[in-house]
Amino acid sequence: MNVVTAIGEARDRIRAARAEGKRIGFVPTMGYLHRGHLELVEISKRHSEYQVMSIFVNRIQFNDPKDFSSYPKDLQRDLDLARAAGVDLVFTPDEGEMYRNNLTTVDVSLLTDHLCGASRPGHFKGVFTVVSKLFNIIQPDVSIFGQKDIQQAVSIEKMVFDLNFPVKMIIAPTVREQDGLAMSSRNKHLDAEKRRNSVCIYRSLKRAEELLVSGETDSGRIRSAMEKTVLEGSPDRIDYISIVDYASLQPVERVSGKSVIAVAVFFGSTRLIDNMIIEFEGGGIKCVY
Amino acid sequence: MNVVTAIGEARDRIRAARAEGKRIGFVPTMGYLHRGHLELVEISKRHSEYQVMSIFVNRIQFNDPKDFSSYPKDLQRDLDLARAAGVDLVFTPDEGEMYRNNLTTVDVSLLTDHLCGASRPGHFKGVFTVVSKLFNIIQPDVSIFGQKDIQQAVSIEKMVFDLNFPVKMIIAPTVREQDGLAMSSRNKHLDAEKRRNSVCIYRSLKRAEELLVSGETDSGRIRSAMEKTVLEGSPDRIDYISIVDYASLQPVERVSGKSVIAVAVFFGSTRLIDNMIIEFEGGGIKCVY
Repeated sequence: MNVVTAIGEARDRIRAARAEGKRIGFVPTMGYLHRGHLELVEISKRHSEYQVMSIFVNRIQFNDPKDFSSYPKDLQRDLDLARAAGVDLVFTPDEGEMYRNNLTTVDVSLLTDHLCGASRPGHFKGVFTVVSKLFNIIQPDVSIFGQKDIQQAVSIEKMVFDLNFPVKMIIAPTVREQDGLAMSSRNKHLDAEKRRNSVCIYRSLKRAEELLVSGETDSGRIRSAMEKTVLEGSPDRIDYISIVDYASLQPVERVSGKSVIAVAVFFGSTRLIDNMIIEFEGGGIKCVY
Repeated sequence: MNVVTAIGEARDRIRAARAEGKRIGFVPTMGYLHRGHLELVEISKRHSEYQVMSIFVNRIQFNDPKDFSSYPKDLQRDLDLARAAGVDLVFTPDEGEMYRNNLTTVDVSLLTDHLCGASRPGHFKGVFTVVSKLFNIIQPDVSIFGQKDIQQAVSIEKMVFDLNFPVKMIIAPTVREQDGLAMSSRNKHLDAEKRRNSVCIYRSLKRAEELLVSGETDSGRIRSAMEKTVLEGSPDRIDYISIVDYASLQPVERVSGKSVIAVAVFFGSTRLIDNMIIEFEGGGIKCVY
């Protein structure tokens, strides 16, 4: 496995792989890898022959400087995990390599109005900008994003379409802990009690699924039931429980087409998110977590 | 020469050329070609073996709908000129091929505050967005932009740097009519008298060069002298006469480093622009028009 910090060297190595006829798979990360990231690499391998992972904690997407400075880091462990997962190239630039007096931003309107966009001003613009940069540096054939960050995944999918990036995007289902908590680098901030209680988020999605399967389609009633379930975990604050249309990410009053139920909850100062995608198939309902 | 309207077909043809080892040169245009555009193709040929030209009047960069609807068009003539110039592929999509419920925009801050950015709100965002799309569709090795649109050229240069587009950018000097008027598709809107008078713009740049060569560096005094020269052409309105730093495009009080003198003047409702780049070389001054 090659570990490179310079854009030029990353490009050279990828060019060499492409010249051997290999397709380039790309998993962007902010490091502190967990099984969720490694699953993205597994999926990428099914679609490509050369695996690139970026590890870069992208300051410009943190609306809260404290969240940035406390973001967990362990590069040596990350590299060991990436190597074991079969990654060919880790691109881990420093901030000076990525940003020099940056004036350019990429934004996707409407899709970022609600959900995390409402409580994290500037966050998505920072995400779109760094992903555009990484796409132009890596020039992947395929790139894999986790469903856990559903608003990110759907709006990057739209960005790829709108700007004609020559990249195939795949959104991979969320990988979970034994009890159902979505894997996240931020879970390490939870103490034992909060960690136990945090399963209420997953349970609230399960509760929504029960209601949907039983024929409930009213967003208000589904959200009320979810809120009750979340509150059983005594969170410090519920940021949102939202039901939105998949393509537009705008709230819906009634679940009728492809939709997303998304939840964001604070345990202490740690903000946890989770979601499920609802699809209607052959008269039935399919929920993807 | 191939003429294609579909993104997929453009990509296929360019991929085939690249597979033959050819470098891809790209000249984006809005059509109604003049010698200025053809000169860009000539320069592109020196750096690449397969010439792509796009012809697309990009509605989202027109802040004035009337300017969009009156923008001159003559596709057949354009294709004849492109063929004669040795273009290999003309990509001329319709609006539906380029934009379907577009939500994504690219912007470059600061560089678009002054000059044309001040009087054409939204214009540059539309330019950056379409150029990003075209870069992702064509994936050129080199792309040539005219100096006449200096603010566009400098800020796209910055966008390419900031977003790491794998494209080499070249800014080519302005091609002029016999009397010095910068070539522009909009010149056709001028009646005979306005056309004669419009040379005052070029003369004002020449006047600035005289002053600079004689040792004058005060922006205010240079601009006053230029204004006097422009007014000799009885324009309907001067939009701006500005002296700015080349890299930042911010106004300077004194010409000391690489700078741009830029002019925008209305003759009737037709807005004409021109500029010169000032470089200091070996104790002397070089002005590039």
